[in-house]
Amino acid sequence: MSPTRTEMTFMPPVMEARRWLADVTFPPERPLINVSQAAPVDPPPDGLRRALADAALTRDDVHLYGPVLGLPDLRTALARRTSQIYGGTVSPDQVAITSGCNQAFAAAIATLCSEGDEVILPTPWYFNHKMWLDMAGVAAVPLPTGPDLLPDPEVARQSITPRTRAIALVTPNNPAGVEYPSELISAFMALARAHGIALIVDETYRDFHSQPGPPHVLFQDPDWHDTLIHLYSFSKAYRLTGHRVGAIITSAARLAEVEKFLDTVAICPGQLGQHGALWGIENLDGWLAGERAEILTRRGAIAAGAPQLQGWQLLGLGAYFAYFQHPFAESSADLAKRMVADSGILCLPGTMFTPDDDPTGARQLRIAFANLDADGIGVLFKRLAAISG
Amino acid sequence: MSPTRTEMTFMPPVMEARRWLADVTFPPERPLINVSQAAPVDPPPDGLRRALADAALTRDDVHLYGPVLGLPDLRTALARRTSQIYGGTVSPDQVAITSGCNQAFAAAIATLCSEGDEVILPTPWYFNHKMWLDMAGVAAVPLPTGPDLLPDPEVARQSITPRTRAIALVTPNNPAGVEYPSELISAFMALARAHGIALIVDETYRDFHSQPGPPHVLFQDPDWHDTLIHLYSFSKAYRLTGHRVGAIITSAARLAEVEKFLDTVAICPGQLGQHGALWGIENLDGWLAGERAEILTRRGAIAAGAPQLQGWQLLGLGAYFAYFQHPFAESSADLAKRMVADSGILCLPGTMFTPDDDPTGARQLRIAFANLDADGIGVLFKRLAAISG
Repeated sequence: MSPTRTEMTFMPPVMEARRWLADVTFPPERPLINVSQAAPVDPPPDGLRRALADAALTRDDVHLYGPVLGLPDLRTALARRTSQIYGGTVSPDQVAITSGCNQAFAAAIATLCSEGDEVILPTPWYFNHKMWLDMAGVAAVPLPTGPDLLPDPEVARQSITPRTRAIALVTPNNPAGVEYPSELISAFMALARAHGIALIVDETYRDFHSQPGPPHVLFQDPDWHDTLIHLYSFSKAYRLTGHRVGAIITSAARLAEVEKFLDTVAICPGQLGQHGALWGIENLDGWLAGERAEILTRRGAIAAGAPQLQGWQLLGLGAYFAYFQHPFAESSADLAKRMVADSGILCLPGTMFTPDDDPTGARQLRIAFANLDADGIGVLFKRLAAISG
Repeated sequence: MSPTRTEMTFMPPVMEARRWLADVTFPPERPLINVSQAAPVDPPPDGLRRALADAALTRDDVHLYGPVLGLPDLRTALARRTSQIYGGTVSPDQVAITSGCNQAFAAAIATLCSEGDEVILPTPWYFNHKMWLDMAGVAAVPLPTGPDLLPDPEVARQSITPRTRAIALVTPNNPAGVEYPSELISAFMALARAHGIALIVDETYRDFHSQPGPPHVLFQDPDWHDTLIHLYSFSKAYRLTGHRVGAIITSAARLAEVEKFLDTVAICPGQLGQHGALWGIENLDGWLAGERAEILTRRGAIAAGAPQLQGWQLLGLGAYFAYFQHPFAESSADLAKRMVADSGILCLPGTMFTPDDDPTGARQLRIAFANLDADGIGVLFKRLAAISG
């Protein structure tokens, strides 16, 4: 009997890491620093909470089924917002709302692939992408990156086979933090188009990009939708992780296929969360700019402190993430586990983001720094500096 | 190039039916009777709405990621509730919360099947089950039912092959309304166990069952979890369709596999909706009993009126559904479309619930009567009686 879909993949890494905490007590003078999570730990701003409460009390429709592809007003608002940010043209019928961005990726793959197809993922990869491909019967073809953690389109070209259906990029990158340059993203778009495959660009952390202006120019091409599948999340921008609101932007024709998948796996995204996301777009621009500035300040503190860490190397930095190479002989899989008790730090090892036969992950750690303020980052560096091999 | 996952299945029937409304205007003296939807059209009771609003304002955790398998308090409450109703033993670690019951089915299939496996579905089937199996690369093996719309375990036995992984029952049935007798469900359990396959029992409409007492005795078997996968929905009981809260009850070991699927396709169920479901379990027993009584009254009105419909035959009745055989030569696929303009009735044809090569669906219509009060049911019967072939 062949393995079932779920047997084809591994346990969720975040769950596994949480289990490391089970038998450890953290003394009050050295509380746990949890830098394993790529998510806000504070609730949304009060105005948004009130908007959610008001909708629950006064709008009947938020309690009932909505359209499979999402609230029309939210699709319209995100189309307009995306057009503004990227200087391109996105129409509401090219936007669908999903129950989180992971689901947007899953839906995209369902429209692209069948059993035995291939999707190219730069490594280190986002483990939920790898897990979904495993369960969908699709081979995740690793695209190794160099010391700058940027994928090379020429290397990718050599990995394309008749079974390749897409290249999936994450920028700003999870886990590596790096922001892919606009020209690099364009080069991947050209590569995908030349081979008649899709380019998936997951921009979950887009709102915390360090550069002003559009992160890429893909939407400025009037034919973007023949190749591009853009994924987005409202979770990080408005602290709505518990409401599950993401999005997929692609051709209206592909969204008709997406609709089949979403109807069957979700029926519709949570209605209340969608109203929250819409309220966020309409009211939280200033607040979000402040959030971004704060995260960029923290990013600056990581960049400033990293060179003092003897033997460590900061490989990538951006979004919520610092991606380090550690100086020890042991694998990051062991090191990360040991750091819980020894250092009071929970972070994820590079081995969770790399193929089993790729030795680079054993040298790497992902530090999701965004929830640490300046003091917290200072303490983090002290504890990292105290680790011995 | 082989068809993609989504190309392997059909457009969501509910969407298709909605499109029939596009070019039709309904005069004020004859408004549309929409009996296509198997869902409440009214919001939840005020107390539940206030509980949701309060949670949004006062609890930070409802806005943030929660456990993949759901809120521990809700898992515990549903375990206790299920144990009570069925007179059996279900523990919290055998309960997971999903983003709706469709997702529970999808998760179950992911833990059971790989490409080319088979799952037996009695026909008429629930189309979202068929759609998910199509997209999962699993063959939906139809199990034709007789005039009573009940599946026969002996017929099912003959359909079991080395690739069969499960039999999936829906009781009370969607679309056919029929409540499967306890002994029949037990016979299917014995059949599944004898062949080492799973029995999936989707009880989305359990709270509107016409019989008092447990709908089946499967949970009274201490080893139920070696075979049974029970699916449930909070959507219908508490009118929470827009919040997407369902459940899967099975072995803790299988839930560890379910966790991989849910982590990747949803991360967690919406947190606020889970608090709403918990509030419902704790506070709405009396209210739900009233809802059930009202739906059973409406069911009685259908049963009383049906014999007056010349040439029509009521094949099944229960939950939200009356399943009729119509007296006309034309296919229900054409009839249902024609009824929108001719009769001001939107219902779904049997062809949406049957395999393409099964002629029975062409004679059948599903009428989701639960949202019609006594007067509405009277009008419905008048309009049905006026249809000519």
